[in-house]
Amino acid sequence: MTIFKGVVPPVITPLTENHEVDYPSLTRVVEHLIDGGVHGLFVLGSTGEVIFHDEAARGRILDHVLKIAGGRVPVLAGVIDPTTDRTIARARAAQAAGVDAVVVTAPFYTRTSQPEVVDHFRYVREALDVPVVAYDIPVCVNIKLARDSVVTLAREGTIIGLKDSSGDDGAFRFCLLDLADRPDVFLMTGSEIMVDTALMLGAHGVVPGLANVDPHGYVRLWNHAQAGDWTAARAEQERLCRLFEMVWAALPRVSPGAAGVGSFKTAMQAMGLISTNVMARPQRRLDAADTARIVERVRAAGLMG
Amino acid sequence: MTIFKGVVPPVITPLTENHEVDYPSLTRVVEHLIDGGVHGLFVLGSTGEVIFHDEAARGRILDHVLKIAGGRVPVLAGVIDPTTDRTIARARAAQAAGVDAVVVTAPFYTRTSQPEVVDHFRYVREALDVPVVAYDIPVCVNIKLARDSVVTLAREGTIIGLKDSSGDDGAFRFCLLDLADRPDVFLMTGSEIMVDTALMLGAHGVVPGLANVDPHGYVRLWNHAQAGDWTAARAEQERLCRLFEMVWAALPRVSPGAAGVGSFKTAMQAMGLISTNVMARPQRRLDAADTARIVERVRAAGLMG
Amino acid sequence: MTIFKGVVPPVITPLTENHEVDYPSLTRVVEHLIDGGVHGLFVLGSTGEVIFHDEAARGRILDHVLKIAGGRVPVLAGVIDPTTDRTIARARAAQAAGVDAVVVTAPFYTRTSQPEVVDHFRYVREALDVPVVAYDIPVCVNIKLARDSVVTLAREGTIIGLKDSSGDDGAFRFCLLDLADRPDVFLMTGSEIMVDTALMLGAHGVVPGLANVDPHGYVRLWNHAQAGDWTAARAEQERLCRLFEMVWAALPRVSPGAAGVGSFKTAMQAMGLISTNVMARPQRRLDAADTARIVERVRAAGLMG
Amino acid sequence: MTIFKGVVPPVITPLTENHEVDYPSLTRVVEHLIDGGVHGLFVLGSTGEVIFHDEAARGRILDHVLKIAGGRVPVLAGVIDPTTDRTIARARAAQAAGVDAVVVTAPFYTRTSQPEVVDHFRYVREALDVPVVAYDIPVCVNIKLARDSVVTLAREGTIIGLKDSSGDDGAFRFCLLDLADRPDVFLMTGSEIMVDTALMLGAHGVVPGLANVDPHGYVRLWNHAQAGDWTAARAEQERLCRLFEMVWAALPRVSPGAAGVGSFKTAMQAMGLISTNVMARPQRRLDAADTARIVERVRAAGLMG
Repeated sequence: MTIFKGVVPPVITPLTENHEVDYPSLTRVVEHLIDGGVHGLFVLGSTGEVIFHDEAARGRILDHVLKIAGGRVPVLAGVIDPTTDRTIARARAAQAAGVDAVVVTAPFYTRTSQPEVVDHFRYVREALDVPVVAYDIPVCVNIKLARDSVVTLAREGTIIGLKDSSGDDGAFRFCLLDLADRPDVFLMTGSEIMVDTALMLGAHGVVPGLANVDPHGYVRLWNHAQAGDWTAARAEQERLCRLFEMVWAALPRVSPGAAGVGSFKTAMQAMGLISTNVMARPQRRLDAADTARIVERVRAAGLMG
Repeated sequence: MTIFKGVVPPVITPLTENHEVDYPSLTRVVEHLIDGGVHGLFVLGSTGEVIFHDEAARGRILDHVLKIAGGRVPVLAGVIDPTTDRTIARARAAQAAGVDAVVVTAPFYTRTSQPEVVDHFRYVREALDVPVVAYDIPVCVNIKLARDSVVTLAREGTIIGLKDSSGDDGAFRFCLLDLADRPDVFLMTGSEIMVDTALMLGAHGVVPGLANVDPHGYVRLWNHAQAGDWTAARAEQERLCRLFEMVWAALPRVSPGAAGVGSFKTAMQAMGLISTNVMARPQRRLDAADTARIVERVRAAGLMG
Repeated sequence: MTIFKGVVPPVITPLTENHEVDYPSLTRVVEHLIDGGVHGLFVLGSTGEVIFHDEAARGRILDHVLKIAGGRVPVLAGVIDPTTDRTIARARAAQAAGVDAVVVTAPFYTRTSQPEVVDHFRYVREALDVPVVAYDIPVCVNIKLARDSVVTLAREGTIIGLKDSSGDDGAFRFCLLDLADRPDVFLMTGSEIMVDTALMLGAHGVVPGLANVDPHGYVRLWNHAQAGDWTAARAEQERLCRLFEMVWAALPRVSPGAAGVGSFKTAMQAMGLISTNVMARPQRRLDAADTARIVERVRAAGLMG
Repeated sequence: MTIFKGVVPPVITPLTENHEVDYPSLTRVVEHLIDGGVHGLFVLGSTGEVIFHDEAARGRILDHVLKIAGGRVPVLAGVIDPTTDRTIARARAAQAAGVDAVVVTAPFYTRTSQPEVVDHFRYVREALDVPVVAYDIPVCVNIKLARDSVVTLAREGTIIGLKDSSGDDGAFRFCLLDLADRPDVFLMTGSEIMVDTALMLGAHGVVPGLANVDPHGYVRLWNHAQAGDWTAARAEQERLCRLFEMVWAALPRVSPGAAGVGSFKTAMQAMGLISTNVMARPQRRLDAADTARIVERVRAAGLMG
């Protein structure tokens, strides 16, 4: 049985006004999440603005989170690089740092085919001693991991799990059905707003960016689902859906990417968890009007006094 | 007036059977292009499989080409990195190596807005002492440089030119019209098959991947256009269009990316210019049947005895 | 409270070998559905191949189904026409025939904006005395009904419900949340494979094409959900998911449209409900190999002796 | 040799304030075009708002234009219906009215495959005694006519020509190359802004919506191209490009469809050719501010005193 399950937030990366990583704030974020009862941490994911950080910065962020986590929960590390051999190099660094698994996307910038994507995961796995989780995020990499690719890679042992951020819950359901006899493979949704239903389908975990803001909420939701109390799970999810609407507060003034992660940072700054809501360049930072709309949602969700 | 104009091929990067850069072959490619009369070289572009090479490899490739070119033609270097500060770091390295300009795309993997893309180019330019060329390649980065963005960036001096690989020749035409009073700004098409028409529109240069195979053809085409002999230009272009059909020889067995650059490598191997048609992983290599189809086209174009 | 709720299959339109509507088969389909316990019928939807039938044929199909149904269940009629005034003309005919509601899409072929789509529904509603249901099917009409459009139209009384075939379950959930205080508005999913979860979200009905093949299954699923037995609902849904895989049996030999509805017809022919699996032109008909694969699934689902 | 060549404007359909077809204005439009020297008329195309008119209205529009044209130029009629048998019925009516050819799109609303699209044209052709022109307009019908489909249909005699509104000038060029030995097949571009280059590629005709506003301009452009004077052709085209910018004057207040045809109607109303700029519902009409911007362009192009 896998050690990966439950609520595994994609940890945000707080920045200072000078666009440096703000490690004291990052420490507070990790403690906030572990206090909230999360079951694991996903560092250096899209929500962590991984793509904005170079190799050295990624190494420091990873080391810091591993040190603060201190083995209290497993740590998965995103290895988000465009092509196979660059991915292998970064994944080996993450492996050496001591992560429990690496989370790898299909190649991007280049246009690969589905068989080439399958080969990509095989080449990466062969070069490592650490488990590989496939990260399906077509909005970023421009190709969807086909159901057959996921099932093939899982059955042959190339991947031990999936983080599905495709939004295609039907395809996700068929992956769950196809792998129902494989309890060693875990399938996680990246959704914030369809977590109760994903768990009803049998998902093994959830990776909601919004859990940075409200880890307790997602842990309660997880616990309700584990107990089979779908009425309570739905009620908790609906409260979180209303909170989630913060991701649209800054549109269209900023990009969807900046609006989403930026809203989490803005809420967390308002809650006293991090020092700024600075976003990595060239993303625009949320402004005072955006912040006012977000704080209103945070209050409505019961997260501020 | 700009020094950049004419035929500026995106130089392929030959590989050995072990997936190492094949420098002797790369030397032959550069000499082949300069012998062919090209007006500049674009190193580390998409056709150069830049996205598959890490920072160290990119540095070595660039140094090698600069050394072989030896100032005979200007050298532009692609700086293809997902986000602003990573782009700046790579661009500074290219600047230090001595390139004549850097060629920069919009951010990728992350979803930015058009204003954030404009900011991206501004941040990059401010950090450099070398001219910046914008590279519009939505198929890779998932966002199109809007006509207004290009014109704004050119007029304010942030960019000195454009390489348009968007396929939107109408938008390209409006950029040419809007900047007709600015002879210091150059606008290049990345097309292989609409070069005569792009030149008739007033394009200042062309960056066709197929020029790796047949630089003489594109130089003849350029010269016909300069002489206003559109009939001869069209005839040359049509011969090159037939040659270009090699890019579909391996579809759908390999990805579009691998099929296109792979066909150029396959033709160049058959012509004795490079040692293998190996593609960077996870791209699939063209096989014997693909090669036979490609050689037939190369012969039909008069490029093999 | 609305009379529309529960399982409302989009009725297929059986054809003879000569591409005429096969009314005896259509009678059997309607009786099969009502025997199966469905709560309503949706005639002349996409699954009914409405777009292939001209005005006269649509009128005859509608009259026939209304006659056979005989008031035992409410009948909703698709009015699928590209633009406003043509929609109004067809909707008036459906109204005159005696339907309980008309189901209307956004305009298609032409590219309209979201405000123009809202106006479209208003113009249609003003011209009728029968309730209007919005049909969100972007794969056919190339525009998604925005959440705000749906909520606005529902609150002002222009539409009394929604059939959501967009596949965007997150947006559907927000519509349900926004209209939770309006029990007179009903929101239905067009999915075959996410019905249990849609009902857990609070959906008021389901319009699965696959219910033509197995109405009893979807009625059981509905009843389990009404009883709050989500474990039984999920088990029933998973059986139906396996049955649903028939829609891919003929790909890529025929188009996705022909493969989906064609698989339902093929299964129903094998079950003795209809006489042929003929599809309207130019759609290709499923062949013997496709049929064998489909019959296997029908048997596995327990629907054939 | 075909009788179809040259400038063949897609005739707009003027409306009264009551959304009726304005026949006196339509008469003036036809005379304006023939006076302008056009070589044919394309009635009931997308620019003619065909999709908004029912069968009876289409018949009246067609009869009117045929009567006014009176054989002075050939008349092609768009037959824009979603599916095969409905297309055949409408095409027979157009044939009976006396058109010189019918212009037919791929099916829409339904999702067909490329082989089904090829069958569609074959079924339509078999049912008619009038020539068929293929109309490639993926933005409306959601599928692109593949180069192989066009070439196959042309070589076997199913179609006698193509109106290419796909914007994919590279694919258009390959169609021209593939059919260079077939002078009986004519290939027309639907572009307004790439007409000079299309003619340089060897296109046999052009179908620019903007020719409703300025037929003389496009006829001069055609004549320059016929004379091989590409410098004059380009200058004329560039003037027309600036005029064309009117299509963006009303964005994003109205939809792209309404903004484009609406700008032509607005210009023609200002020029005294038609009585209103009313658009068919639900399209929004251009307002006074839009009109002011458009009139400015019309004046700059030398079309108003």
